[in-house]
Amino acid sequence: MSYLERIAYCRRWDPDAYRPFMIEDATVGRVAHEFAGRLRAFPEVFGVSDRGVTVAPELADFESRSAAVAEVLRELERDGEVPHWRDEDYPVMRRWGEAPLMRMERAAVPRFGVRGFGVHLNGLVRGASGMSMWVAKRAPDKATAPGKLDHIVAGGQPYGLGVRENLIKECEEEAGIAPEVAARAVPVGAVSYRCERPEGLRDDVLFCYDLELPADFAPRNADGEVESFSLWPMDEVMARVRDTDDFKFNVNLVAIDLFIRRGFLAPDEPDYQAIWEGLRLPQEA
Amino acid sequence: MSYLERIAYCRRWDPDAYRPFMIEDATVGRVAHEFAGRLRAFPEVFGVSDRGVTVAPELADFESRSAAVAEVLRELERDGEVPHWRDEDYPVMRRWGEAPLMRMERAAVPRFGVRGFGVHLNGLVRGASGMSMWVAKRAPDKATAPGKLDHIVAGGQPYGLGVRENLIKECEEEAGIAPEVAARAVPVGAVSYRCERPEGLRDDVLFCYDLELPADFAPRNADGEVESFSLWPMDEVMARVRDTDDFKFNVNLVAIDLFIRRGFLAPDEPDYQAIWEGLRLPQEA
Repeated sequence: MSYLERIAYCRRWDPDAYRPFMIEDATVGRVAHEFAGRLRAFPEVFGVSDRGVTVAPELADFESRSAAVAEVLRELERDGEVPHWRDEDYPVMRRWGEAPLMRMERAAVPRFGVRGFGVHLNGLVRGASGMSMWVAKRAPDKATAPGKLDHIVAGGQPYGLGVRENLIKECEEEAGIAPEVAARAVPVGAVSYRCERPEGLRDDVLFCYDLELPADFAPRNADGEVESFSLWPMDEVMARVRDTDDFKFNVNLVAIDLFIRRGFLAPDEPDYQAIWEGLRLPQEA
Repeated sequence: MSYLERIAYCRRWDPDAYRPFMIEDATVGRVAHEFAGRLRAFPEVFGVSDRGVTVAPELADFESRSAAVAEVLRELERDGEVPHWRDEDYPVMRRWGEAPLMRMERAAVPRFGVRGFGVHLNGLVRGASGMSMWVAKRAPDKATAPGKLDHIVAGGQPYGLGVRENLIKECEEEAGIAPEVAARAVPVGAVSYRCERPEGLRDDVLFCYDLELPADFAPRNADGEVESFSLWPMDEVMARVRDTDDFKFNVNLVAIDLFIRRGFLAPDEPDYQAIWEGLRLPQEA
């Protein structure tokens, strides 16, 4: 087991199994061939060919595209093709900060291989014997990765919310971190990956934040998504990331990024360059 | 002017102007076509074809390759084809930590487009009004980037030295930072780039370190490579990186990486994702 295995999991996908999903000549996702076939049933909304799936050009703006696709998705949900409906929309675009081309129900995002954005918080505590990190255990009834280990706070980035705004909201809901404490969180970069998961093709950018919490703070979960929290010395976090897949797949990447940024991994260690290179996808044109 | 322009400079090169430089089937660099033609004069050492330049297979190990190529390079230096001889060897490999396939005079490394490794130190001072950074002005007689702004400490990674070992040596030589202070430097990741420069094709990985220095410390240069040092508030460093090319080309990348890691740039700012993606080359197979 190794850090490189955790990274390899997050980069495993078969390009031949997908065709591009396009809006106005821009490729904004990837659709599995079988699902593309299913979308042929909606010719007013999707153009489906061997070369790709397009949103019908008649749906020429954000609102009309979003509304027409939402109607199709509701029908697919009734047929069990889009499980775990969230009632939460994601913006559809390749790069954070661009104008979204449409909005799309979160549960459908991996079915279309659309890029998802999220925010992950490293909750850190500085002590006499070094640094510790708060670890959450996900509730056993979560749709994604039930029972896996997680960050103290992590969440998807819904349409219409800034990253910091979302972080502060999630801090309160997921861990009972008051807004004035959450506001001290420092943005420290991001990780990105593309991998095949039960829910579809995950093509995500996760914005990472570090928050140093006081030693007497104890998180409490308000939304039922967390079973328990515990505070782990950093070497225990490192060993668990390195030697097991107990952490949710993408939490591993954010944690490894932390190990690199904070000097827990150093250039003279084996595989340093490959680990560091593996934490983000190449820039796209 | 913008951060993206600084990044674009470090990624500008013309793939059609080069052919691969190979050792034992591994591509370890890129040679400009004209220089490849020049290497035809040494058929015992280099095999030159349209498909690439190879080191002769008879030179089957590290020592024989290194010695034979060094002899050629000395001859090319006499003809003015390898200027600014350093008398310092770099290891030749694609990834830090791999066994080097040979060693090569530093001045020749960009002529062969071989990957160079280096170490850059952000010298930081925490004050009541925020963070400052030590900035060096390079001596006017430096072969590369004379008179440009630089890190307090930065250096190439010669053959046979560990990264931390090299950092501590450079700290003493370039800025008079005592080993016991330099030892507190924290490895925080790396940046990588490939770009055309007067000296050739630079294909570098720079390991980045942060060192928080006491407020009463003042650097002093011992090797004549620095004209002066000054301590700048971070917003001044940011403006100068963003709005000018006063900093040495690759120092900009390490500084921008610092801005991202320390929260001086945040996800909700424009271009954040493109800036963050631009700080490293994609992973190679």
